[in-house]
Amino acid sequence: MEDLVGLREGASGNPVALQELWGPCPRAQRRIRGFLERVKRHLFWVGEDWYLLVGLGVLTGLISFAMNFVVSRIVHGSGISELKVILSGVVLEDYLDIKNFGAKVVGLTCTLASGSTIFLGKVGPFTHICCMFAAYLGRVRVSALGEYENKIKQNELLVAGAAVGVATVFGAPISGVLFSIEVMSSHFAVWDYWRGFFSSVCGAFMFWLLAVFNSEQETITPLFKTRFRVDIPFDLPEIFFFVLLGFVCGIVSCAYLYGHRHFALFVQTNWITKKLLSTDKPVYSALVALLLASITYPHSLGRFMASRLSMNLYLDSLFDNQSWALLSRNSSPEWPPEVDPNNLWFEWYHPQFTIFGTLTFFLAMKFWMLILATTIPMPAGYFLPVFVYGAGIGRIFGEILAVIFPEGIKTDDGIINTIIPGAYALAGAAAFSGAVTHTISPALLAFEVTGQFVHVLPVLMAVLAANAVCQNCQPSFYDNGIILKKLPYLPRVLGRKLNSHWVTAELFMNPNITTLAKDSSMDEVIQTVTSTEAVEYPLVESAESQLLVGIIHRDQLLPFLQAEPTIQVPRHQWHLHEVLAGGCPVEPVTLQVSPQTSLHQIHNLFELLKMQRILVTSMGRVVGFISWVELEKAIADLANPSAPK
Amino acid sequence: MEDLVGLREGASGNPVALQELWGPCPRAQRRIRGFLERVKRHLFWVGEDWYLLVGLGVLTGLISFAMNFVVSRIVHGSGISELKVILSGVVLEDYLDIKNFGAKVVGLTCTLASGSTIFLGKVGPFTHICCMFAAYLGRVRVSALGEYENKIKQNELLVAGAAVGVATVFGAPISGVLFSIEVMSSHFAVWDYWRGFFSSVCGAFMFWLLAVFNSEQETITPLFKTRFRVDIPFDLPEIFFFVLLGFVCGIVSCAYLYGHRHFALFVQTNWITKKLLSTDKPVYSALVALLLASITYPHSLGRFMASRLSMNLYLDSLFDNQSWALLSRNSSPEWPPEVDPNNLWFEWYHPQFTIFGTLTFFLAMKFWMLILATTIPMPAGYFLPVFVYGAGIGRIFGEILAVIFPEGIKTDDGIINTIIPGAYALAGAAAFSGAVTHTISPALLAFEVTGQFVHVLPVLMAVLAANAVCQNCQPSFYDNGIILKKLPYLPRVLGRKLNSHWVTAELFMNPNITTLAKDSSMDEVIQTVTSTEAVEYPLVESAESQLLVGIIHRDQLLPFLQAEPTIQVPRHQWHLHEVLAGGCPVEPVTLQVSPQTSLHQIHNLFELLKMQRILVTSMGRVVGFISWVELEKAIADLANPSAPK
Repeated sequence: MEDLVGLREGASGNPVALQELWGPCPRAQRRIRGFLERVKRHLFWVGEDWYLLVGLGVLTGLISFAMNFVVSRIVHGSGISELKVILSGVVLEDYLDIKNFGAKVVGLTCTLASGSTIFLGKVGPFTHICCMFAAYLGRVRVSALGEYENKIKQNELLVAGAAVGVATVFGAPISGVLFSIEVMSSHFAVWDYWRGFFSSVCGAFMFWLLAVFNSEQETITPLFKTRFRVDIPFDLPEIFFFVLLGFVCGIVSCAYLYGHRHFALFVQTNWITKKLLSTDKPVYSALVALLLASITYPHSLGRFMASRLSMNLYLDSLFDNQSWALLSRNSSPEWPPEVDPNNLWFEWYHPQFTIFGTLTFFLAMKFWMLILATTIPMPAGYFLPVFVYGAGIGRIFGEILAVIFPEGIKTDDGIINTIIPGAYALAGAAAFSGAVTHTISPALLAFEVTGQFVHVLPVLMAVLAANAVCQNCQPSFYDNGIILKKLPYLPRVLGRKLNSHWVTAELFMNPNITTLAKDSSMDEVIQTVTSTEAVEYPLVESAESQLLVGIIHRDQLLPFLQAEPTIQVPRHQWHLHEVLAGGCPVEPVTLQVSPQTSLHQIHNLFELLKMQRILVTSMGRVVGFISWVELEKAIADLANPSAPK
Repeated sequence: MEDLVGLREGASGNPVALQELWGPCPRAQRRIRGFLERVKRHLFWVGEDWYLLVGLGVLTGLISFAMNFVVSRIVHGSGISELKVILSGVVLEDYLDIKNFGAKVVGLTCTLASGSTIFLGKVGPFTHICCMFAAYLGRVRVSALGEYENKIKQNELLVAGAAVGVATVFGAPISGVLFSIEVMSSHFAVWDYWRGFFSSVCGAFMFWLLAVFNSEQETITPLFKTRFRVDIPFDLPEIFFFVLLGFVCGIVSCAYLYGHRHFALFVQTNWITKKLLSTDKPVYSALVALLLASITYPHSLGRFMASRLSMNLYLDSLFDNQSWALLSRNSSPEWPPEVDPNNLWFEWYHPQFTIFGTLTFFLAMKFWMLILATTIPMPAGYFLPVFVYGAGIGRIFGEILAVIFPEGIKTDDGIINTIIPGAYALAGAAAFSGAVTHTISPALLAFEVTGQFVHVLPVLMAVLAANAVCQNCQPSFYDNGIILKKLPYLPRVLGRKLNSHWVTAELFMNPNITTLAKDSSMDEVIQTVTSTEAVEYPLVESAESQLLVGIIHRDQLLPFLQAEPTIQVPRHQWHLHEVLAGGCPVEPVTLQVSPQTSLHQIHNLFELLKMQRILVTSMGRVVGFISWVELEKAIADLANPSAPK
């Protein structure tokens, strides 16, 4: 349409499109326009947020599917070497810039194309991609609506983004939301949880819809469909074995986390790898990938760890109903030249090694390979590999049980139910991945991806047992990352044991606070500003009273200090209040604590309100401030009272 | 053991039990004692909380099962009349006193024994019972450990109690936790969520264990096991019908909530019912129960609404795979003299009425019967009836679809899948109960109680659609209760639309605050205290400066005002600071806001920190205070700007 604009007679000065004046049927046009306006008002009545959430879900569903599609085409097509992939060497960036978006998608797709060779997944980086996308949508909203930027709303969108990320990887909306909640924050709003659900349902729906249209699936069904017995899925005494499996997974996860942290530290500090990682990331990545790829080569060592299976087929095979140990007593199948989708267990069978040999070898090798793979600086997920590894632990546990009780565990009624090793694999996957990430939602994920809920209690109990072991001994996988990257984070205050309730603000606040007084001379102000580095200064009524008035930002104050005087007073006789009268903005202090406020209360404030810094006042006087630094130190001192202060 | 105590020679004055001095093998005894001490320390290393949580879970599981057991015995045994039940007339008390515990358990058991007649469930009151029990355990802990009472810890236990309540009613731990989160609070700590999971798994396990030992179940299996097709549970176009069903459920739920609120208001204000409810609760209950019981009598009107089925059998029958409409085309079964557990649908079949007639009649009658039943003042749950009602809506929707598409919906490939009306019943149950309570977790509950996860996307979409309709039109069932009982609650601040970001504390704080100055005379203090009703007074430095120093509690001040003077000054010349020096405690003000703090920030503080009242200070001076009353009024004024201030 042309942008010619005219003025209608009698109109109150508003420009009107020329078409409206001379086009056919001006009245009908106006009516249609009014109708469209009403429709628009009606649609936006619920808030444009919901449309953003739909957009977020649908688009990330599309991307997730497109990536899977490309990966499957690449893997099915030419045998692209893993090296080519790794040489891209895309590094995880901490900021949510849409410019990285494309690089990230391409990099991750390439990584995934290398499949099970280097045993990496998609969850983490894809979640990052979704968060980037959510942040971008938020900025689009702000600029489109001219609304002032709202940190809370921005945060809501990010939480929804993380939920969508997990949801669209597995097509599992419920556990996606819960997993993102557990991993991301210590507190969450029920409001966020609803929005997360909405967006992740949209995303998961899109993901499945495309799978159906692509004729991969007949309809929307679970990813790793299991067919466990429904009537009597397990006997009551088996609960004991499930809990035992949970403890085993907990112990292995401790070893894994310990190994991961220390190996990563070693790589960070060792001079060879340090030099490689700082200058030649692609070389390091290529070397590691070469090592991993040569080990997993199916016709060498890979033969003993079923390395022809992709990540999805690993899970499909491990969740199998039948006991391989019992099956292999009756038959000894040949190793097929191609993977047989109907008999995936052939891959795990080796005439001399037996299935126990291959499973043990798989677990032993993948343990260090997984730790090694996490040091590669490229976007890759570590959740799915951990999930598969846990399934392996559970499978071997279940197979051992099946051999010990070949007829199943007898009940009083004489009814005999054989043991399903696949159920133990399911519990192991949930327990191990739950322990490594310190979360419970993998239990739900296990049900959601298999479509069966019959093992809800045993799996939950295994996850709780594994968490009980691991949370007491090791920081989680994500905390490991925080420790290694030295990111700021707030440790938990461990309640009762440490008498932490008696620690108050005055014991750990920082009393060395530089204030600006209204009655201080300009020379004093300039000296203060040049001699300190603070971003903001508390403004007090007078140097003597120290009564808190507000906050002055350094960068807002500086232009006024450099400006020429506007009133007829010699500059050195100026005082700060004259600068303030000249228009320098003073921000109100919305929240302040007293020296008697307890550590617990301040910790809550920082966690719940996402604060960075708070002022401590006593009878209106500024006496100090508390930031993350002071709070972290106070908590650390509590945990190690002997540490030098 | 005797309590004789002696003093060992050379001991540092600590009394030692006599047995230790003269018992056999004192060294071995000491070693054993030391070992036990170490075991105890080790066991309590993780905190005694976890043991409390186990206790909470196990005991409530026991109670839940015992109640079910008694109910089933009563129902199977003599035909106890419903009247007898209702005459107990136990009233919901708002406080968590263990004294009510027994009354509550007995009352609820009696109510449940009347079964489907008055169409009531167990969730709500049983959750209340669990919370009572959790509060009691918390008090036991405090008195056993001599630890000072911690409000946060108390709260954590209550949340776990609520989760256990829901979990043990359905034996569904996951949705129990999520439902309690959604209904109870607007913000949630991930820590609470873990503890809730732990406790509810214990509870659900206990519940199932007893069911197995009682030989009701072979093993732990879902309560309402469904056997939907797994391969292709539904065709893609059916998603549209599921969403449509969600909208229908949303609209019906609005009508239900509207009817419920207005009828309850009518009962509260109408002079006959008002008088009955205030003086003769049992008479009112008896009259209502008599009416409901006579309508549901199986050989009169009850014949047309399958009233011989219990609540559980209602769900079992409605989740049936087969289409009754198609079945009844081929056969017209007789109405059996007893309920046939293998052919529950015979109850719904009537030769003249057809199944559509009975289902419609069921929905029409139960609509007003459910509203009427909620006005009975006794402990009863409204969640399960709502769940069943929703299943009814879904069933009739599914049956209509089955008649329209008797061969199923054809796909492009020519594969034909018949429609499963039971899946629509499942979606309807989740959507209707989700809409009535404004929650999403009923979707998860639907999967957990049926053991199948295959309909995850359509059911979630139906629940979201129903919520979208209902949350925009009506307050939730629980909010209705809050409105009717005039309990204090904080409405949500509806963000952008209302320019609420510009409303600051000074616009809505209460400036009429009575302070006590340190330099005010005793006569002034006494006059202030006698002329006002406040529970606490801000203490200021002087009447002139109004600098906030702390808080004085009225009941702590009063004894000092009545005491005799201890120093040689005439009483009327005393000042408050002399009373304070005499030992009257002054509590520090841990948190204060300024007049420029925004409504949003204050709302967040109140919600997140569970605050009741906050002081507003400006440069140390007390200028006002904000409590729930002011905050509620401010939010209401925002929503209705025209309302008189």
